[in-house]
Amino acid sequence: MSKSASINADFEAGMRVGVLGAGQLGRMLGEAALRLGVECIFLDPAEEACAVAVGRRLRADFDDANVLDALASACDVITYEFENVPVDSIERLAEQRPTAPGAQALAVAQDRLSEKRLFTALDIPVAAYLEVSNRKEFDAAVTALGLPFVLKTRRMGYDGKGQYVVRSADEAEDAWNALGDQALIAEAFVDFDYEVSVIAVRARNGEIRFYPLSRNDHRDGMLRRATPVLDPSPLADTAFAHTRALMTHTQYVGVMAFEFFVTRSGELLANEIAPRVHNSGHWTIEGAECSQFENHLRAVCGLALGSTAAVRHSSMVNIIGGLPPLTQLAQIPGVQIHYYGKQPRPGRKVGHVTIVAESESICSDRVRQVEALIADY
Amino acid sequence: MSKSASINADFEAGMRVGVLGAGQLGRMLGEAALRLGVECIFLDPAEEACAVAVGRRLRADFDDANVLDALASACDVITYEFENVPVDSIERLAEQRPTAPGAQALAVAQDRLSEKRLFTALDIPVAAYLEVSNRKEFDAAVTALGLPFVLKTRRMGYDGKGQYVVRSADEAEDAWNALGDQALIAEAFVDFDYEVSVIAVRARNGEIRFYPLSRNDHRDGMLRRATPVLDPSPLADTAFAHTRALMTHTQYVGVMAFEFFVTRSGELLANEIAPRVHNSGHWTIEGAECSQFENHLRAVCGLALGSTAAVRHSSMVNIIGGLPPLTQLAQIPGVQIHYYGKQPRPGRKVGHVTIVAESESICSDRVRQVEALIADY
Repeated sequence: MSKSASINADFEAGMRVGVLGAGQLGRMLGEAALRLGVECIFLDPAEEACAVAVGRRLRADFDDANVLDALASACDVITYEFENVPVDSIERLAEQRPTAPGAQALAVAQDRLSEKRLFTALDIPVAAYLEVSNRKEFDAAVTALGLPFVLKTRRMGYDGKGQYVVRSADEAEDAWNALGDQALIAEAFVDFDYEVSVIAVRARNGEIRFYPLSRNDHRDGMLRRATPVLDPSPLADTAFAHTRALMTHTQYVGVMAFEFFVTRSGELLANEIAPRVHNSGHWTIEGAECSQFENHLRAVCGLALGSTAAVRHSSMVNIIGGLPPLTQLAQIPGVQIHYYGKQPRPGRKVGHVTIVAESESICSDRVRQVEALIADY
Repeated sequence: MSKSASINADFEAGMRVGVLGAGQLGRMLGEAALRLGVECIFLDPAEEACAVAVGRRLRADFDDANVLDALASACDVITYEFENVPVDSIERLAEQRPTAPGAQALAVAQDRLSEKRLFTALDIPVAAYLEVSNRKEFDAAVTALGLPFVLKTRRMGYDGKGQYVVRSADEAEDAWNALGDQALIAEAFVDFDYEVSVIAVRARNGEIRFYPLSRNDHRDGMLRRATPVLDPSPLADTAFAHTRALMTHTQYVGVMAFEFFVTRSGELLANEIAPRVHNSGHWTIEGAECSQFENHLRAVCGLALGSTAAVRHSSMVNIIGGLPPLTQLAQIPGVQIHYYGKQPRPGRKVGHVTIVAESESICSDRVRQVEALIADY
């Protein structure tokens, strides 16, 4: 099948979607697929892969050519739920089966420097940044950006890993010693007020739909809570426009998350994209008419997109490290439980809860009850 | 473990629920279980068992003592999704693990005569009925009930099977010849206006919650459409009171469906109960805060019940026989697709669609679009 091969116009239930990655995002994709009568086949090298509860899994490295080819021949379309899969693997798969999102968006998302350059090329505002590939460039960045600034690896960073906030000359030495052997980027420190993300989906025919903007709270570099902002706003419109520009430019197909800082003066600064379903969109399972997971599958499979409208107030709270007993969690009204079937471990995302309610204040109150409960685990 | 053994007070994610039956009801129970981090293990003798997509399955007859014991030892609690499992099997399981719903409700539901007698004992109105165990009793029933009347097998009837509407002396002979070798019940013909069902859940502590009354449309003896009636009414209150009486009397635990006829004069007449999650409650997945499937698991596992409140207008349409292409179905707004992964076959329930909308009229309009589409398959 050539790259230009399109999905059969009569895409039927019973078709198969190959998914690189078999963590909780794959598990929730698999849950959405089940209801469409679509089978997911996962590829993941990890011993523990919680998506195995909803589909077969091929256990192999993401660059195992034979297994990639086997996956392609077993499936009708291919996607991924993990953005650190090799771009070469996606290109190889795309030669055999319709594969989305494409290699271009993936390559951009894997390299913070390419990402920032693309934002700039598309007139999407970003904090000042400089490439750092040697000590001389590092010293120049310290001078140019001033203190504090942020030093990050260009590749493989997630959940706050692979980055340092540098506040002093001593910390500059520490950061350089820790990361200096890798390709880096230095970014001006953004003293932001809060973070938001756009969860958007683009179909094969170019149609784009946006979920309500999500307001995100982090702690220790990890997302803790994501709450859709149901009222329209100029800020949301601007974030949607940036996302539209990026998705259109990359001919993106599927769900993308685009994270922004909101500065204290109310300006948006692009942070990063994730070319996949995203933690800050989990509230869409119960809070929106069609979830990010189903819409990703709809886009990848060439189906019409579902509605991204919110259906009620909601807020998502991550469960990290340990699981509170279901007996206690189930007592809080409006709580929608998602345990991933993963072994608890400090710093590990083992589940999430979406709190739903008829009003924002009831929702906030329930969020506080949930957060008080999970603080103990 | 003795019969009185209760669920561990700290019921945790990762526990296992044994489920007798592995059809679409089991599949949807399994989907709800997944999100709770609970594993379902199914027992079903059928070659095709669509719940295998969401859990392991033991393939054996429902009365295989060794397999029943293996299921009990592998699981923390036991339930069923098929009401024609042997009562003896449920009793055997209940000696080893908490098992719900109990054998009493199951035995009643399996025998139309016991069921009607229990309704009568609880002052729940039913159409006139007579036991028919021989030709003499049959002839007496024809005389007593007059024409038309309905002749039914006491056991194993579902989806309109095992019953005859008798409108003439000739039809009486035909009905007797077809069914006369079985234990029968003759019932007065109810020229009802429409049918409703109560979907209710009772917890181990005796708490009962009711979903909005469902109005059901049948054709050829099979449920075609179920629509929750969101406005409260005296009719609904009466149906809930009858259901409460029955659940309390049988010390029921789990979800029960109770079907009623509504006569042209607006009276309720009890038809039958199903001691399990039910087709007329599928709309609760998207239309209610906590679905019948999750609430059944919550009850069986000893967790607090979830809210049974409707969150928007919805209507469920069964897909019977053949599957319309997803490409077409996905184009109708507000459509929530549930394909069961079953092979299409005439008269077989292979999926359902829940239509959701902000208003009743938009919902009805979308239902018509869906029904027009599935009429071709």
